[in-house]
Order: sequence, then structure tokens, then C-alpha cells
Amino acid sequence: MNNENTILVMKNIFEENDRVAKETNLLLSKKNIFAVNVLGAPGIGKTTLITNIIKGLNGIKSYVIEGDIKSDIDTQKLKSIGIEAFQINTNGACHLDSLVIKSAIDGMNLVQEGVLFIENIGNLVCPAEFFIGEHIKLLITSVTDGSDKPYKYPLAFENADVIIVNKKDLLPYVDFDMDYFLAGVRGLNKKAPVFLVSNKSENECAEVIIWIKEKITIMKP
Amino acid sequence: MNNENTILVMKNIFEENDRVAKETNLLLSKKNIFAVNVLGAPGIGKTTLITNIIKGLNGIKSYVIEGDIKSDIDTQKLKSIGIEAFQINTNGACHLDSLVIKSAIDGMNLVQEGVLFIENIGNLVCPAEFFIGEHIKLLITSVTDGSDKPYKYPLAFENADVIIVNKKDLLPYVDFDMDYFLAGVRGLNKKAPVFLVSNKSENECAEVIIWIKEKITIMKP
Repeated sequence: MNNENTILVMKNIFEENDRVAKETNLLLSKKNIFAVNVLGAPGIGKTTLITNIIKGLNGIKSYVIEGDIKSDIDTQKLKSIGIEAFQINTNGACHLDSLVIKSAIDGMNLVQEGVLFIENIGNLVCPAEFFIGEHIKLLITSVTDGSDKPYKYPLAFENADVIIVNKKDLLPYVDFDMDYFLAGVRGLNKKAPVFLVSNKSENECAEVIIWIKEKITIMKP
Repeated sequence: MNNENTILVMKNIFEENDRVAKETNLLLSKKNIFAVNVLGAPGIGKTTLITNIIKGLNGIKSYVIEGDIKSDIDTQKLKSIGIEAFQINTNGACHLDSLVIKSAIDGMNLVQEGVLFIENIGNLVCPAEFFIGEHIKLLITSVTDGSDKPYKYPLAFENADVIIVNKKDLLPYVDFDMDYFLAGVRGLNKKAPVFLVSNKSENECAEVIIWIKEKITIMKP
């Protein structure tokens, strides 16, 4: 095998991924299910933020697909508070692709319209490269991870539809330069709103919930 | 291209990577340069920890290879305090491989014996899969990222020779269960010492420095 073949394999993987993702997107749109691809580094607070948003969306049916390399810790946590969650284990793979999402959706009972949160693998790099059928990408970063993340991991910030800066409660104890962070974001992405929140309190993400509710309304025919 | 070809491409990539990594490892050993592959999620404190260790290794020559998808922020930071640093930009790739390390080493002036720190891409997944010629893997996690990381990202913990739990100064403000964390680590890795440190003070990593110095002494003929 030479480099040409490697490039051909990668091209075919991306093409097949996009084809299936488009089908999934259409299927979910028809069912009036708004799909949110949740991206962020390990330990950034993806599951807790999803939980807080779902609590704030009361009255709107929510589903979760949990992507993890191993373990079903987060799915068990979600189920224990009555959230409908489906576990995907990639057993090593660094991102979710549209094929695993398709088979997860086939295994779920998505009869009621609402919102589907897809928690991607904790990784700021690979998940940003794959469209998995979502309507929006929600990117989470945090004040403890530093203000240089947009400069170091540009694709994730460039493709995000909404950016959450988590762990606001730790702001007094860390060096986080919001101006430098925002300049980095705006150099890549002019549109995505940026919300500073804390997972410590459910009310903290009230603005995020209003924003998502608006997006759901726009999607509906 | 079918799945068989995809698997063949991956097998060839790993074999070629390992062959070059072994050559690099031999070359560095001959030069009495001890190579440390530094792994950890984005924003975990890799560069600051490397800086603090280098300051504590005074008298021992240190080199750094900085792996980033984009930007040379960390290399500039290191150079500004007199540390010899070389930048690799992967332009999207999620890990360093032995070929880029070989070409970085070819471009560096490694004449004096000492320690070479290789800061991998901020990612808990892909970098754990690639041997790049190092003598040890140093894994950094932090109390702000939660105590479930070994359960969710097992390979990185399984392969680590030493594990650093960073951001000890934030321990009073977060939920981090050290017993649960250590049980997860020991289920995967019986040997690697675990050090709880804070990047806020150089003295915090005194024990890590003693441990690395011992390893360097063992390597020498």
C-alpha cells in the first residue's frame, strides 16, 4: 500500500460518512427531532451540561446518545434521573461517525418529537471532522483549560454553532483571559454565540436553553 | 477499497511507525538523551509542568519538542525563558507519530546528553496508540477533569509509566474522588507512580523530578 491508497481510503471513509449523515439528518428532521452534536475535551462537563439543559427544556422530550471509548458511567447517571439514554462504546475509536449513530438511532424508540443530544467522544480534535447527522454542533470548553484553546484547536471552534465556556465558578482561581479567548474565537467563527456558564447550578444555563428552544422553533415546518 | 484494504493500510501505518520509533529510541539512548512522551487532554497543564520539571532538573540539559495542531504559543513561551524548543504543527492530525519526531530530531542540535520532553497533541485518545521513540510515557490528568478518566480512557492510563494529577490547588472547589480514581488506575496499571501536583508552584513537582532523575540514572550505561 502506498500513500495514494491511504488517501483514497480516507476519501472513501469521509464520503460514506457524509452520505449516511445526510440520511440521518433528513430522517430526524421528518420526525421533528432536533439533533445536537456535543463536542468537548475529556472532563469538560458534557454530561452535566446536557442534564442541566434537559431539565430546563421541561415539556420537551429529550433523548441522549452517549459516546464513550469504554464504560457506561454517563448513561447510567442519565438513566438514574429518568433520561432516555443509549450507550455507544467505540472501543478505542477517537470520534463518533454517522454509521454508529445510524445504528444507535435504529435501536432507539424515537417516536415523540423533541431533542436528541449526541455526546461525542471527549476529544477536541477528531470529532470536529465528522458530520454525524446533527442540526447543530455545541462545543464546550472551560475556564480551567485556558484561553488559548481556539488558537490551538481551530477546527472545533470554526465549525461550532454555539460555544459554551464552562466552570465559571472556578474563574476566581485560574488565569483565564476572556478577551484573548473571544479574539481567538472571532478570528475563526463570527456567528456562534458564546455563553459563560457553571455546571454547579441548573439555572446557570438559562440563556443556552432559550437559544436552543429558538433553534428548535425555527426547524419546525 | 473495502474493509480489508482499510485494515491493511492501518497495519502498515503502525508497523512503519514502530520501526522508525525503535530507530529513534536507539539513537537517543546512544546520545544519553532520555525521551519523555508527555500525554494529556487539552488545557491540562502539559507545558507548565514540563517547564517546572526542567527548572527542577537544573544542571541537566533539557530539550522540548512541542506538538500542536496549530500555533506555536507554547514554543514561544519556552524559548522566552531560555528553553531549547522545537515546534511541530500537525495541521489537523490528532497525534504525533515517529516519522514527524524523526524529522524534528534531525532538525535539532542534540549534542549534549540530557532529557528530551515531547509534548504530544492535547488528546487522551490517539496519542496513547503511537510509540514515538520515547523511553517513558508521562500522563497528565487533573482534579478538574473528574475522577472517572481511567474508566473512560483506559489505554492512556494502561500505558503510562508515570501519572500526574494536576491542579491540586483547585481540589477544594471540585468533586474529585481520589480513591475512585486510584481504583480505576490500579485496575489498568499496577506499576506507574501517581503524583498529585499543582502547576502554581515549581516546588510542587519535587517528587516527580526525583523520580525522573532516578530513571535517567538507570538508563545510563
